[in-house]
Amino acid sequence: MSGPAASKPQVSSRSVVLDAIRAAGTISRVGLIRATGFTAPTISTLVRKLINEDLVVETGHAKSTGGKRRVLLQLNHASRYAVGVHLDHGVITYALTNLGGTVVARISRPGAGAQEPAVVVARIATEIAALIDGVGVERDRILGVGLVFPGPVNATRGMGGPPDVGLAPAMRQWNGFPLGAALEQVTALPVALDNDATAAASGEHWTGGFGTATSAAALYMGTGIGAGLVVNGSTYRGPSGNVGELGHVCVSADGPRCWCGARGCVEALAGPAAVVAAARSEPATARAVGFTPGVRRPSVVADFAAISRAARRGEPHALALLERSARHVGVAARTLANLMDLEVLVLTGPSLATAGSVYLPIVRHELRACFARGTHTVDVRLSRSAATASAIGAAALVLESELVPPGHGPRPPEQVPGRRVRLTESAG
Amino acid sequence: MSGPAASKPQVSSRSVVLDAIRAAGTISRVGLIRATGFTAPTISTLVRKLINEDLVVETGHAKSTGGKRRVLLQLNHASRYAVGVHLDHGVITYALTNLGGTVVARISRPGAGAQEPAVVVARIATEIAALIDGVGVERDRILGVGLVFPGPVNATRGMGGPPDVGLAPAMRQWNGFPLGAALEQVTALPVALDNDATAAASGEHWTGGFGTATSAAALYMGTGIGAGLVVNGSTYRGPSGNVGELGHVCVSADGPRCWCGARGCVEALAGPAAVVAAARSEPATARAVGFTPGVRRPSVVADFAAISRAARRGEPHALALLERSARHVGVAARTLANLMDLEVLVLTGPSLATAGSVYLPIVRHELRACFARGTHTVDVRLSRSAATASAIGAAALVLESELVPPGHGPRPPEQVPGRRVRLTESAG
Repeated sequence: MSGPAASKPQVSSRSVVLDAIRAAGTISRVGLIRATGFTAPTISTLVRKLINEDLVVETGHAKSTGGKRRVLLQLNHASRYAVGVHLDHGVITYALTNLGGTVVARISRPGAGAQEPAVVVARIATEIAALIDGVGVERDRILGVGLVFPGPVNATRGMGGPPDVGLAPAMRQWNGFPLGAALEQVTALPVALDNDATAAASGEHWTGGFGTATSAAALYMGTGIGAGLVVNGSTYRGPSGNVGELGHVCVSADGPRCWCGARGCVEALAGPAAVVAAARSEPATARAVGFTPGVRRPSVVADFAAISRAARRGEPHALALLERSARHVGVAARTLANLMDLEVLVLTGPSLATAGSVYLPIVRHELRACFARGTHTVDVRLSRSAATASAIGAAALVLESELVPPGHGPRPPEQVPGRRVRLTESAG
Repeated sequence: MSGPAASKPQVSSRSVVLDAIRAAGTISRVGLIRATGFTAPTISTLVRKLINEDLVVETGHAKSTGGKRRVLLQLNHASRYAVGVHLDHGVITYALTNLGGTVVARISRPGAGAQEPAVVVARIATEIAALIDGVGVERDRILGVGLVFPGPVNATRGMGGPPDVGLAPAMRQWNGFPLGAALEQVTALPVALDNDATAAASGEHWTGGFGTATSAAALYMGTGIGAGLVVNGSTYRGPSGNVGELGHVCVSADGPRCWCGARGCVEALAGPAAVVAAARSEPATARAVGFTPGVRRPSVVADFAAISRAARRGEPHALALLERSARHVGVAARTLANLMDLEVLVLTGPSLATAGSVYLPIVRHELRACFARGTHTVDVRLSRSAATASAIGAAALVLESELVPPGHGPRPPEQVPGRRVRLTESAG
């Protein structure tokens, strides 16, 4: 009989204290003793170090409760920054956040398209430099870059699994390219990698989009469909970083063949690419949407946005297409909710940034029939930052490695490598 | 910006040490210092207490490594016992395990059927007494009773959510009955509650059925279909105890209406009740299986077992029915694997105890088309104790409350209440 493995109660006390300060907003040393369970001398030493590193500042006094008024501590938000990059076929989105996770700048640039990976990576480095310089942040205050993309991170810190298996068709040329190492070389910054749907969940989590839910998901639609999961209050990645493959939930056992090899996947039936193909194949819809035969937009996301605009201005064919897709997506979301006991589902990603108002009521309706044994409902919301949630989540990857205690929820699949002296290492 | 909440690094050092001893089998005090990170005086004090409580014994010496030979410690397996009860419509299964989780006795008795809950509870108390007396274990060595059943645990420590919502039709009379309190009263033992599919996963976990997988599931078939989940190496219950509702995964968006209200649920299409109904409605199959019009077996599980026996002796109609069901179940399992990044799936529960050999190759085949981005396969296995996994998992509920450190994975939804002095409390 084996049972669960023994655990080692080893956590980085420094991260625990940083995380407690971050979560509290402002807190006294006595408050930290209560919040962490550490002794007064330990807290005193750790706080002194964090102040010396400029990560924490003293910020006035708490109200007197009879004795000496206590000095309050808070994170020095402007002391460090993180860059988040969301690399996709149709668009590359950038976010710069401070140590507290507040977005201080965001930009969008043309997507990877069919360009050579090395060319795209060189451009990303230039665009990151422009992002940082644009707000006048000093280079040595940048903790690192979080880079997220469709599909999984592989062992060579690139995109995708075995050739032609792990990646959606639009990203196939990235297979085998050592993305992490290449971007580290041109930026001279440590790079952390993750997939875009999981990053979207991280982004929602850090920006409060899930509220107090401990079981939540980001339903992500960009070129394809995916989901990022929050389990026990932490972003969950699974043993191989491949949880939340919502696009490959089967909603029709005898449905059409998907590019993944299975039948009836919701992405094959109802994903943005399927919706765009259907719109192109129906002359009335194609005309109403403004699709010209032979003329293509740069990406599925751009085509899908055109359909969304047509639907929003009341064009019935476009609306009917999106509603049909939304019903299938809603069925897949119900399956996810039933399996994960979801409390909150946030609709996000670039395609839901344009079509969210059509999908929201239909997904909500499908989730009313959600099971959860009648004990609770699932709160379905539109993301407040659907177009940039993944880029924010990418920056959060970097912040998590600095702020969240090891063992407090699963770690990101890729640690920020030690290419320069890291704060955690210099703390002693 | 809120982000993840601050954690408190508070764990019960006693549970950590007990768990480390359990996981190691035998271990020295020096080994415990290494395994737990505690200081030598802490380990010395904790071990002395555990020996005084008879929970741990010294058991010879480790091989010399040059210095003094170290005394080895191990759990005193026979010092405490736990009772597991799996209550179902068709059968009630009992398991008695020692502190190490080894099953020392198991029995099956007639199911709850249509009997009054109070009558069934009185019978369960008598049957527990017979189980304990049968192996001559003293009553004060019983830690408590784990009781598991279809559907969720509600706020009154009974079965099911709001009336007529949470429970499958066969268990409706249990809605509103205060099961936990009633069984505690008649047994004078603390009672912990959980649902049967989750307990099946716990049972597999404790008996090593998942190997070293950290992401795994028990696909449970009894009267209905469910799943118990292992996430990050621990049984996962979700915020309302309703994860793993595999029976309500939609495999056909336009399929038949399920008792839960939705369409196309795999349980409605392919669950044991649907298979039995199909066999009854086809005269040739009904004859081959031995169904006599007007004569019913006591339960769906018993009817399904008759179909399984016919299929195993090569009866083509029965085999075709099970194979059709297995394909649908396999599609739902693929969805679960894609969403949870499963490494291992174990087929278990009373209906798979009889039909597992038919389902195994078909579910395996469906999971070959599993996505996981081509990075790994899913190992599909038959449970070594499909008929009793839930009862073993019920006993594990009690052992977990004794042995597994708080915060090491999610806690059971129901703590064993303090109706008598508990070991954790008497340890000081």
